[in-house]
Formats: sequence, C-alpha cells, structure tokens
Amino acid sequence: MDIDRIYDSFARQGMMTTLQARIETVAEGAVTLSAPITPATSQQQGFGHAALTFALGDTAAGYAALSVIPEGSEVVTSEIKIHLLSPAIGDRLIARGRVVKPGRRLVVVTAEVFALRDGAEKQVALLTGTMVPVPLG
Amino acid sequence: MDIDRIYDSFARQGMMTTLQARIETVAEGAVTLSAPITPATSQQQGFGHAALTFALGDTAAGYAALSVIPEGSEVVTSEIKIHLLSPAIGDRLIARGRVVKPGRRLVVVTAEVFALRDGAEKQVALLTGTMVPVPLG
Amino acid sequence: MDIDRIYDSFARQGMMTTLQARIETVAEGAVTLSAPITPATSQQQGFGHAALTFALGDTAAGYAALSVIPEGSEVVTSEIKIHLLSPAIGDRLIARGRVVKPGRRLVVVTAEVFALRDGAEKQVALLTGTMVPVPLG
Amino acid sequence: MDIDRIYDSFARQGMMTTLQARIETVAEGAVTLSAPITPATSQQQGFGHAALTFALGDTAAGYAALSVIPEGSEVVTSEIKIHLLSPAIGDRLIARGRVVKPGRRLVVVTAEVFALRDGAEKQVALLTGTMVPVPLG
Repeated sequence: MDIDRIYDSFARQGMMTTLQARIETVAEGAVTLSAPITPATSQQQGFGHAALTFALGDTAAGYAALSVIPEGSEVVTSEIKIHLLSPAIGDRLIARGRVVKPGRRLVVVTAEVFALRDGAEKQVALLTGTMVPVPLG
Repeated sequence: MDIDRIYDSFARQGMMTTLQARIETVAEGAVTLSAPITPATSQQQGFGHAALTFALGDTAAGYAALSVIPEGSEVVTSEIKIHLLSPAIGDRLIARGRVVKPGRRLVVVTAEVFALRDGAEKQVALLTGTMVPVPLG
Repeated sequence: MDIDRIYDSFARQGMMTTLQARIETVAEGAVTLSAPITPATSQQQGFGHAALTFALGDTAAGYAALSVIPEGSEVVTSEIKIHLLSPAIGDRLIARGRVVKPGRRLVVVTAEVFALRDGAEKQVALLTGTMVPVPLG
Repeated sequence: MDIDRIYDSFARQGMMTTLQARIETVAEGAVTLSAPITPATSQQQGFGHAALTFALGDTAAGYAALSVIPEGSEVVTSEIKIHLLSPAIGDRLIARGRVVKPGRRLVVVTAEVFALRDGAEKQVALLTGTMVPVPLG
C-alpha cells in the first residue's frame, strides 16, 4: 500500500481544507478522517450539516478503496447512500471508511460517522457506496 | 406555502454561506439552488467536490419537502442516495429538488444537479431520498 | 440493438417464469415488463410483495442497460435502491426501465413501477441503480 | 417481544411460500431467514435471482424491525438498497436482518445475505433500508 498517494490526494482537495478535515489513520482497506463541527459547517439548527457528515464519510470510504487498488489509478465515487441516524452534535466528527468488497472494476465500500461529544462517540451516519478506479491523468 | 420559512432556514445554515450557495427559485414542491465551483470546494483533480454536489442536491430536495408540509415543522434528511454521473466541471452547480411523494410522516424527494459551463448545463448527479418532518423546537 | 438477446435472456430466467412476467416493449435504452399480482406473490396484507415490485423494476432496468451495451456482454446488477411509494394493489404491475447514463464500465439506470387497477395506473415504486456489463461466458 | 406475530405475518406472505422461504431464528432486533436456490428462482445464468436475494434480505430486515416496535403495528419497507457482491451460487440463501437504529416513526435496518455451498457461507449481498411502522388494520 502506498500511503503517500492518499496523503497527497487528500492535500489537493480544497474541500477538505475548507472543512478543516484531517487524516487520522490509514490501513489496508480502512481509513479514518475527522473534522470539527463549527458554525461554518452547520445546518439551520446549529448541528453539523449533513454535507459535512457526507463529505467525511464519502472521502474516508474513497481512500479506503484507494488503499486496495493498483498504483496508477485514482478512485471516484459512482454512487453512495447515507443514512443519517442522529443529529451531528458535538465537537468533532470521526468517519471510518472500510472496503466491503474490492474489485478490479468497482469497489464496494461502507463508512460509519460518529460525533465526538465530551469524549464519547455517538454514531450519526451509515454510508454504503460504490467506488470506481480510474487511470491517473 | 410559506416562502419565508425556507429563506429563513436557508439563511441559518452556516454551510450554505460557506459554500456561497443561494436560492434561485421556490415553488410548491420544487426548489432550485446554486453555488459556484471554486478551489475551496474542489476535489483532488480540481473539479467540484462530491460533497458540494451533495450539499446542494440534498438541501434543494429538503426545501422542496419543506414547501409541502404544514407550518410548525422542520424537515431533516433521513437517508439520501447520490449517483455521480459526470465530473462537476464549470462555473456553477445548479440543483433542482422536487417532491416525488408527499406524506405526513415522510416525504420522498429527488434532486438533479447540473454543472453550468460556458452557458450550457450538463447533469452531474441524481439523488433520491427520504425527508422526515419534525416539530419545530 | 439486438432485441433477440433480451428475449433470449429473459426466457432463461426461471424467476420471471415463476412470477408470470412478460416483456411488453423493448426500445433503445428503455424496456417495459409486466406481471400479475397474485396470491402467490403477495405480502402479508394481500398486496403485491415488495420483491415482486423489485423483481420487475430491477429486470426492466437491467434489460434497458443491456439494450445499449455492445454484443457479447451480459449485464448484472451491482446495486439498486427501491423506494416503495404506495401499496401494490391491483391486477398487474408494469415496470418501465430506462438508462440514465450509459457507460463502458457501468450503466446508471432507473425504473418506475406502476400498479394497474381498473384500467388506471398508479406509481408504486421508484428505483435507481448501477448495472455492470460482463463478458458473456 | 411477541414472536408469534412474526410467524403469523410470515405465514400470510404468499411470496414466502412461493420462494419456499422459512424463518430460521428470531431475536430482539435480529431475524434470520433462508430459502433454497432453485431453477424456479434463477436468473439467466442459473444462479439465484437478485429478486430472491432481495426478497429474503428485505423480509429479514422487516421482521427485525417488527421485533422492536410496539404491539398493534405492522412495518412496511419505505426504501431499501441492495449491493449484490457475488453471484448467488449454492444450495440455499441465508439472510440475516438487523436493526441499526430503532425509532417511533422509522426504523433503520440492514441485512446481509449469504449463499450456502458445500457447507460454507459466502456473502452475496448487503442491504440497508428504512422500515416504517403502520397501525394494524
């Protein structure tokens, strides 16, 4: 596994910078990201916006997929579904992406997103999706 | 239909401000939003991030649902699936949310997201989801 | 478009025979199927079972995809989501599958399923999914 | 938990009889079903049809939801997504439904479906969906 290409790709994502997201851990088929819940990423009630939860879950799942495919490829999300289980209340969101089934043409992934509040984690979302490897530019 | 509550709710979403999103049109069961594609909302290849596309599609669909439910309620996304059909390349994204089936306990919605480039629209995403009315605080 | 391969493939599906399904129309990127709602395909309240609705919607969408890919390939469903909008009450179900975005590696599809009752159609389901071309045996 | 209402409801499903499905286990928030893979439930290559896999997964998830809601209610599937991970090859399919998040107005569920072949299980599908409690007739 080439960890560098995950860090390099992540660093090029303007959206991840805007959301103040960071990579927590990278393992074969499993990537964890996190980001703070701030007024700049809130929804109308002041909780974390679904798009913040989505951004982290989708990206964690995408890099989990990238960690299992051959060099010289990127991955893009083909489709992904998110279940929002609880309001995103707390200090940070933590997203754990995981490969369910690797493949040459598509990779099935899942992600779970948790809100960290007063040191305790509560699950706020469950995602399942399809990542597609594409040759690098 | 109370248009004000849609504008008021939208204005309270920090994420919409961060993404520089705006409401284009509001009709009974149909809401259109847009936002620019900028380096601050890009993915690693410089195109619009999936989370930007998601944010607009989900929010347009949510406000389409809000436009058909009784006063005194908010809506929250229970689940939503996004198909990413083409890269988000261009100046702006335009998201058109629409109610497929209204209901007292849940509202089925869809949204289509288009990239505007040199004056022409190209579809970049299709979403289908479930919105749930919740009593206002 | 080779219509025969759609009819041939359909005829080999034991499940379609069990459900008494038939092909109504085949066009480039659009296939319509139908099947009766019977006690043998009911759920616990006597309405058509979600699996009947799914079977028709998924198969109509799959053959819509098959109609747009090169000879020498089959398609398989990679993933598909179904929204059940109304109970399947009536004499027959009619499923209209359609290609949303064709592609060499995957085809995004949609299907709408309607219940026919006393000559009138009512939509009972909306599906969106991903079909993957695979080389024939 | 009232186990009887699950067995009673299952017995009224004509589709379950047609598919020769049976209940394997019922626990609070977790239900396991199985059914044989036969020529009558095959797709065009002779493997188990996606609709068979769907029928078992959806039904197992639905009864898992029913096991956690108050007496006097049924559940219906509002939406469900299925990822088909591997061909359904073998003697039987086994579907394990599970409640992810219970709720008064909707229950988020998941199901995993496995093919049993020569005594070994292989996962063939992953489902996530939304079940809605409705008052009994």
